[in-house]
Amino acid sequence: MVNAWTQLRINKDRLIRRIEDLAKIGGLEGGGVCRLALTQEDKLGRDQVVTWMKELGLSVTVDKIGNVVGTRPGELSGPAVMTGSHIDTVRTGGPYDGNLGVLAGLEVAQVLNDAGVKTKHPFSVAFFTNEEGSRFAPDMMGSLVHQGVLDLDEALLTKGIDGTTVQENLKNIGYDGAEEVGQCRAHAFVELHVEQGPVLEIEDVTIGAVDGVQGISWTELTIGGVSNHAGTTPMSMRTDAGYAAAAITCFVRKLAEEIGHPQVATVGMVKLSPNLVNVVPNKAVMTVDLRHTCEDTLLSAEKRFFEFLEELKEKEGVSIEHRSLARFEPVVFAEEMIQRVEAQAKTLGYSVKRMPSGAGHDAQIFAPSCPTSMIFVPSVKGISHNIEEFTEASDIEAGGNVLLQVLLDKLMNE
Amino acid sequence: MVNAWTQLRINKDRLIRRIEDLAKIGGLEGGGVCRLALTQEDKLGRDQVVTWMKELGLSVTVDKIGNVVGTRPGELSGPAVMTGSHIDTVRTGGPYDGNLGVLAGLEVAQVLNDAGVKTKHPFSVAFFTNEEGSRFAPDMMGSLVHQGVLDLDEALLTKGIDGTTVQENLKNIGYDGAEEVGQCRAHAFVELHVEQGPVLEIEDVTIGAVDGVQGISWTELTIGGVSNHAGTTPMSMRTDAGYAAAAITCFVRKLAEEIGHPQVATVGMVKLSPNLVNVVPNKAVMTVDLRHTCEDTLLSAEKRFFEFLEELKEKEGVSIEHRSLARFEPVVFAEEMIQRVEAQAKTLGYSVKRMPSGAGHDAQIFAPSCPTSMIFVPSVKGISHNIEEFTEASDIEAGGNVLLQVLLDKLMNE
Repeated sequence: MVNAWTQLRINKDRLIRRIEDLAKIGGLEGGGVCRLALTQEDKLGRDQVVTWMKELGLSVTVDKIGNVVGTRPGELSGPAVMTGSHIDTVRTGGPYDGNLGVLAGLEVAQVLNDAGVKTKHPFSVAFFTNEEGSRFAPDMMGSLVHQGVLDLDEALLTKGIDGTTVQENLKNIGYDGAEEVGQCRAHAFVELHVEQGPVLEIEDVTIGAVDGVQGISWTELTIGGVSNHAGTTPMSMRTDAGYAAAAITCFVRKLAEEIGHPQVATVGMVKLSPNLVNVVPNKAVMTVDLRHTCEDTLLSAEKRFFEFLEELKEKEGVSIEHRSLARFEPVVFAEEMIQRVEAQAKTLGYSVKRMPSGAGHDAQIFAPSCPTSMIFVPSVKGISHNIEEFTEASDIEAGGNVLLQVLLDKLMNE
Repeated sequence: MVNAWTQLRINKDRLIRRIEDLAKIGGLEGGGVCRLALTQEDKLGRDQVVTWMKELGLSVTVDKIGNVVGTRPGELSGPAVMTGSHIDTVRTGGPYDGNLGVLAGLEVAQVLNDAGVKTKHPFSVAFFTNEEGSRFAPDMMGSLVHQGVLDLDEALLTKGIDGTTVQENLKNIGYDGAEEVGQCRAHAFVELHVEQGPVLEIEDVTIGAVDGVQGISWTELTIGGVSNHAGTTPMSMRTDAGYAAAAITCFVRKLAEEIGHPQVATVGMVKLSPNLVNVVPNKAVMTVDLRHTCEDTLLSAEKRFFEFLEELKEKEGVSIEHRSLARFEPVVFAEEMIQRVEAQAKTLGYSVKRMPSGAGHDAQIFAPSCPTSMIFVPSVKGISHNIEEFTEASDIEAGGNVLLQVLLDKLMNE
C-alpha cells in the first residue's frame, strides 16, 4: 500500500502569489528586486516572511547573525529536517534567486498543516543572512556562521561597501537575535533553487538533481612587457603584455575544452596599459576563473595553467605576477540525498538530470554536517542576477513538489 | 668657390636645451612626456613653441585645425621650403618623437638669423595637430587637413576617447585658428625625426635617408557576445566576446609572423564589458594595427584578417562590427630629395643609409604635392612611445646639421 503523504502536492498559485508579494518589497522599475542584505528593504522582506511563518504556526527563532528559522514540531524532538535559502538579493536581482527556496519551504509547511500530517522529525524553514555577499563579504555569511565555519564576532565586525558593520545593521533592522550559533545541526538539508544557468532549459530537463558544488579558483595576473612603437618594432623584437594576455585567454579556453565538461575557464577581466591603438602594451592585468566539481581535476588544471605561464614568460620575455583572489574546494552532496531527488522527480513524472552547481549556495555549508542536496529548476535563457530572471510557473510547481516529497521522505522515516 | 652658407652649423646645446625645456611640459615621473593632443599640456607646449617662434621673428599663423606655422620671409614670395613635425605625444611618450623635428626647425631659423642669411624662398617651421592619433583618430590629422586630404569639418567633429570633439578641444585651448586649410602648398618639405626603431643603432649608421613610409591599416572592432555566469555556463553554451578578442590578437600575431618582416601587427587597445572576474564578457572593443611597405602585401594581410573575422563569427556565434580608423598606402619619397639627404650627410662626414619609415609621419602627407623626404637619427635600443626614448646628443647634432644643409640647398636655389 502507498503512504497517503506521497499523494500530497503543493499549491502552485499560492506559492507564486507569495513570490510575487515578496518581490514587491524592494521591487525595481521594469521588474526585478533590490534587497541588499540588512538594508531597510531586507528588513521589510524579513518581516513579511516572519509574518507568514507565524501565520503557519511555525515557532520562529532569530540567531545572533540574523538567520531566521521557522520550525514545525515532529514526534521526535531531535534535529529538524531543514529546507531554506536566502531572501537578500544582488543590486539588480530577480524574484526567484533564493526567495523560491524559502517560500517553497513555507508552501511545504502549509501543505503539511492543511493535511494534518504528523512528521517523525521536526521540519524547519530557514532564511540565511547575506548569502549574496553584494554588501558584505564573504557571501553565504549567515549559513557559514550558523554551521560554525565562520566566527560570529568576525562576521559581526565585517564592514560593508558603505563602511558600516554587520552588527550595526542587524541592530538597525532589529534582527540581532538571541539564538546561539555554531552548534546548530540538521537531520538533513534540502534547498530548492533556480539553476541560474542555461543547461536545464537547453536540454529540456525539468529537475536538476544537484550532486555537488564546483570548486572555484580565481587568479589575478599582472603581466609586464615593454611599450614600444607599433610601426617600427619588428615582431621579433617585441615584449607584448597584451599578446601574452590574449595567449593566456586562448590557453585556458583550450584547457577547459581538453579537460571537458564540467570544467569551465573564464577570463572576465582584462586591462591593458597604455591601451592605445599604436603602442605595444607594456602591462596587462587580467583574471582567470577556473571551476570544476573534482578537486584533483581542478588542481591539475591549475598546474597546467601555471606551467603555461612559465613557458609564456620564457617564450615572450614578459614578467607575470599572480595572486589568488579566491579558492574553494568542490563540495560533494550525499549520494542518498541525490538519489532521493532523482527518485521523487521520476515518481512525479518529471525529467531529471544530475548536475553540479556552478554557483555557491547555503546548502553547501550544511553538506559536511548532514545529508544535503539541492533541487534546481530551469532559468529561462540561464539569466540570473538580472532583472530579467524568470522561471516558468510549471517548473516552480515541479520543483516545489519534488521538494515536498524529498522532505516528506526524510520527515516520515528514520 | 664654396657658398658661405655651406659652412653653417647648428648649435647642439641650444637645440638640446629647447628639447629639455619642452619636455618639462607634461613631464612624467621618472622621465618621459604626456602631452596628448589638444589637452591642457598640449596647450602649454604649443604656447612655449609659439613664444620661441615669435622670439625668432617668425610670422606665426594658426589654421582652422590648429596647425601652427612660423615663417621667415625669402626674396621670393612663393611657397615656402617647409620643415616641421608635431609636439603632441602618446600617453607615455619620450622627449624626441616629433619635438625634435619642430625644435630643429627653430634652430635652423636661429642659425639663419644669426648669420643674416637672405634665402631665395621663404622658410617655414610647422607643428601639426594630433599626429599621434592617441586621443583622436586618424593620426596625422593636422597635416591631412592642411593638405586637403581630410575634410576640415569631418576632422573637427571627430570624437576622441573621452567623447569630446576636436572642435570643442581646439576652442578650449584657444588653437581654433583663422587660417584657411586645404590649399597650402610647399616648395619642398623635409622632416627630421628619431627612427623610433632599432635599425640605425644595430647597423651603426648615423643618418637614415628615408625613401618612403610603410602603409598603415587601423581597424576598430566591436565584438558582441552574451554575458553569462562564469560558473553556471558550460563552455559549449558560451558566446564570449573576450575570447573572440583574444583569438583575434593571437591570429594577427601569427599572420605577421607568417608574412614576415617588415609586416607588423599590433593589438594595442582592448576594452571588455562588463569586465568582471565572474562574468563572461558580452562586449569587446579592440583595435588592430597592420603595416607593410608594400601595398599589395598589406591588402592581402587585410584580406586574410577579415576572412578570419568571418570564420570567428561563424565558429563563436559573436557579432563583429569593424570600422576603419586609418588607412594609408605606402608612400615613396622624391628621389631628388632622398639624394640630397644622402649627399649632405656624406659631405658632413656622417654614415648614411636609405631606409623606409615604419611609422606614419606628417611628411608623407606632403609627398604627393611637393618634393619631400625625411632624415632619421638613431633611437637607442629602438625604443619610442616610451618614457625611455633616447637619442644621443651627437646624433641630434648630426641630424640637425643635415636638416640645415638640405633646407639651405632648397632655400638658396631654384
